Amino acid sequence: MRPYYAVIFASSRPADAGDDGYAEAAARLADLAADMPGFLGMHSARNPDGSGITVCYWESEAAIAAWRTHAEHREAQQHGRAGWYERFDLRIAVVTRESSSLAPPAE
Amino acid sequence: MRPYYAVIFASSRPADAGDDGYAEAAARLADLAADMPGFLGMHSARNPDGSGITVCYWESEAAIAAWRTHAEHREAQQHGRAGWYERFDLRIAVVTRESSSLAPPAE
Repeated sequence: MRPYYAVIFASSRPADAGDDGYAEAAARLADLAADMPGFLGMHSARNPDGSGITVCYWESEAAIAAWRTHAEHREAQQHGRAGWYERFDLRIAVVTRESSSLAPPAE
Repeated sequence: MRPYYAVIFASSRPADAGDDGYAEAAARLADLAADMPGFLGMHSARNPDGSGITVCYWESEAAIAAWRTHAEHREAQQHGRAGWYERFDLRIAVVTRESSSLAPPAE
């Protein structure tokens, strides 16, 4: 396989915040990301306590940079810092190996 | 920062499976992993629909290999294939950049 990129976003939503437009914005952002050049896929999950992870896969660092600076995404980032998230960590990683229960690798 | 590794495990639990010892085993495995040499941290989240993500961070490929072949972990992997999971994808990636809302990077 050709290496590709994972953007790993781990976050905590405040326990007492209510939705505050978050769910709608998250769905909208996921749609926008999926339409960006170089988008390969996304996994996202959140626990009842508000902690969650989103991993987005991208073809290149240029694709990640284009998404990071997308106008609507930037606006969401502001909301994220202003209250949607209590805290978050962001990591960028190069995926070098993958396997699936649907297609196990040859050993 | 020195590069380190992320093991990204995306899975789906069957909607109708019940717990079947899963929650207890997951907690036990998380404790075991945290005691392994080279373990750096873990994020885990699951949606109400059964889809979830766990990301574990490790110092080295050797640390990942040691955990992959840990006896109790191997036993859990068997349970995973036998029914805890409907499907899963596993990726290994090298983390090259990180930032946090608690300590934003200098720009």
